[in-house]
Amino acid sequence: MKEKINIGIIGCGTVGSNTALVMQNKRDLFTLHTGIEYRIKKICDIDWNREREWIPPEGMRTSSYLDIINDPDIDIVVELIGKIEPAYEIIVKSLKKKKAVVTANKFLLSKKLLELLSLASNNNTFLGFEASVAGAIPVIKGLRESFAANRINAIIGILNGTTNFILSAMTGKHQTFSEALDTARKLGYAESDPSLDISGKDSAQKLAIISTYAFHCPVSDDDFLIEGIDRIESQDMDSARELGYKIKLLAISRRIDSKISLRVHPALISSSHMLADVEDVYNAVYLEGDLFGKAVLYGEGAGGKAASSAVIADIIEIGKKISSGARFSEKFVVHPEISIQSPDELMVKYYLRFTAVDRPGVLAKIADVLGKNKISIASVIQKKENPEHAVPIVMLTHRALEKNIKKAISIIDKLSCIQEPTRIIRVED
Amino acid sequence: MKEKINIGIIGCGTVGSNTALVMQNKRDLFTLHTGIEYRIKKICDIDWNREREWIPPEGMRTSSYLDIINDPDIDIVVELIGKIEPAYEIIVKSLKKKKAVVTANKFLLSKKLLELLSLASNNNTFLGFEASVAGAIPVIKGLRESFAANRINAIIGILNGTTNFILSAMTGKHQTFSEALDTARKLGYAESDPSLDISGKDSAQKLAIISTYAFHCPVSDDDFLIEGIDRIESQDMDSARELGYKIKLLAISRRIDSKISLRVHPALISSSHMLADVEDVYNAVYLEGDLFGKAVLYGEGAGGKAASSAVIADIIEIGKKISSGARFSEKFVVHPEISIQSPDELMVKYYLRFTAVDRPGVLAKIADVLGKNKISIASVIQKKENPEHAVPIVMLTHRALEKNIKKAISIIDKLSCIQEPTRIIRVED
Repeated sequence: MKEKINIGIIGCGTVGSNTALVMQNKRDLFTLHTGIEYRIKKICDIDWNREREWIPPEGMRTSSYLDIINDPDIDIVVELIGKIEPAYEIIVKSLKKKKAVVTANKFLLSKKLLELLSLASNNNTFLGFEASVAGAIPVIKGLRESFAANRINAIIGILNGTTNFILSAMTGKHQTFSEALDTARKLGYAESDPSLDISGKDSAQKLAIISTYAFHCPVSDDDFLIEGIDRIESQDMDSARELGYKIKLLAISRRIDSKISLRVHPALISSSHMLADVEDVYNAVYLEGDLFGKAVLYGEGAGGKAASSAVIADIIEIGKKISSGARFSEKFVVHPEISIQSPDELMVKYYLRFTAVDRPGVLAKIADVLGKNKISIASVIQKKENPEHAVPIVMLTHRALEKNIKKAISIIDKLSCIQEPTRIIRVED
Repeated sequence: MKEKINIGIIGCGTVGSNTALVMQNKRDLFTLHTGIEYRIKKICDIDWNREREWIPPEGMRTSSYLDIINDPDIDIVVELIGKIEPAYEIIVKSLKKKKAVVTANKFLLSKKLLELLSLASNNNTFLGFEASVAGAIPVIKGLRESFAANRINAIIGILNGTTNFILSAMTGKHQTFSEALDTARKLGYAESDPSLDISGKDSAQKLAIISTYAFHCPVSDDDFLIEGIDRIESQDMDSARELGYKIKLLAISRRIDSKISLRVHPALISSSHMLADVEDVYNAVYLEGDLFGKAVLYGEGAGGKAASSAVIADIIEIGKKISSGARFSEKFVVHPEISIQSPDELMVKYYLRFTAVDRPGVLAKIADVLGKNKISIASVIQKKENPEHAVPIVMLTHRALEKNIKKAISIIDKLSCIQEPTRIIRVED
């Protein structure tokens, strides 16, 4: 029984300094609860002059991560610098030295999760990464442990706080996309370059990690159909509401027989769905399993404190395993029969907004092209008649194939009565 | 490394037979994922003739639980018979034989959790009880592990599916309490004697278990202020909606300095609160922590499949620990500085419905008594004038002390203008 666990933290930014501060402040409490002394031995950062939540005492600080990964006393390396290098090198070298690793690095894990899990397992050590997805929400532990008896059939996540804040502001405050982005920037919810968030790429990285786990299938964020939110307009928000929906940026993975459909895009979701009420910077993950049915895990998806809650949970659990001499770092098993569905095979309902000249026969022309491409119409809203200007025609279709929708819209957009490219938003129900 | 885990299940009703069936059907999958063979060696039930999801083969069946707790090969005893005896004897004897125990017995755990945790710890073995609260929702694991770094400040649960179904039907379908109870019975959501559910007692048992964990304070369901839902009327539902609220049976524990307020009662909750959208037989737990902020865990709270998801999650995790030779069954630490708040000290807003004769001056009389008892009024709805009959006057107060409310209402209810006992419903915000 090892009663002291030494920790090295690499990266003392928002999450790192919050984690260190809490570990210091609650040290006695954690010892009381676990019988283990969790001690931060070293913290590494390349810039000790920038502002942070907590400045470690001088003896704890270093500017070289080698001081941590080469220290034989350090049991757990906490990697909080993000991006690929040197994070990848740090994690690989630490695992090879049989140190446990805790990381929040979604970017790296969305590309290297299986390799790193396998490295951890081969070295009889542990890799914790709860903080990489949805902050403090225990979605990784849920899939790894709590829902382990289930066949997971679907995951629908609101995994990016910035875009959810923007869409909430567009819906609730009738702001335009750029007004809402400005508000997000002012409140510190959007980075100076928010393109990773807006484009849906950040959500795809997170969904790649949980989908790998859920479906036992290697998933990279390159496998996704990805669409961002920058083309959503207030009028789409309004039409969605009229039809009983809200527009959210959803990260969806769904099992269809032995294929997994993977996608991140703005979607219409019924106003009565639990995810429709997830507003502002909150995150949530909706899950379907063969035993538990439906579940939702909801909470703060970002921020130093919420992330530190997840990082420290991993540290405490891994510390308990090391302390007890346990060596059961699981082998991750790939199910080879599972494959990724081509986006063209996607079969969902669609919201279509046509911008057409207001002439008799326009609707008939559109309907004709849709019909020839096996797309049937569920409902139509034609906004108001205006003989001088183009008018929006909003349609909800029944389930249709993505490739048929694309083909039909490419034909429709060439019709002389169509004034602007048709807006296509998928419906999730 | 022990690669075979033998399991004995005691109680082959809905949860027991579902658990056994899934363990049989997914046995190869669990072995593939964990490297461990989970084998059900024996299943005990006193009546093998009643209908069930799955009938175990004859060689697996027994009618004496002693065959399980005395079998030296059995590593994990799964207790699924409920109630106090012989469940208590089974769990105590199994733990003393250093067997691990998995149970869904909320009734027993609401009275004996600390004793049994301590027995497990002293015998270096494990006690799993995820299924005792909120079905498949990982609230126990959340508090034990995922949120372990947090100081928990509040728990608000919808922990009873039957009562939530009834209140949903009263709100959505405008049914009376007894119509909704009948519907619940017809759909199999209410037992022939639903008094444990309706009275709030079942919710209190579940909240006792999670509050003990969350606040490190021994909590029994006897410590609670408990009120059931049988006196809620449709007109209260309607008035609540007008005021922007829904009525839900909430199980609340909240830290106020070093005291814990514990209560189960119908409550007005803002329509925009995440819990307000939890409908039908679903359960949800809202949590507040100093690091993660706010979180909600939502899912199916009952039913054989959902419960088996939680039971098997415990079996798999404990199996992994046994297999790896780990011995870190945690000691549960009580924080002696925490105590239970007297219900009289409760300080919340109140919904008051007076039934008064429609005469000038009535409102002034009521307001006078409230004022003298330090209760200030936030808003009043006086339904419609009707000189022949008593009319309802609905009031929302600002925060007031429970003992002052009780005193004021006892005085008001004696006024000659008051026709019926005043209806008091607490507000949670």
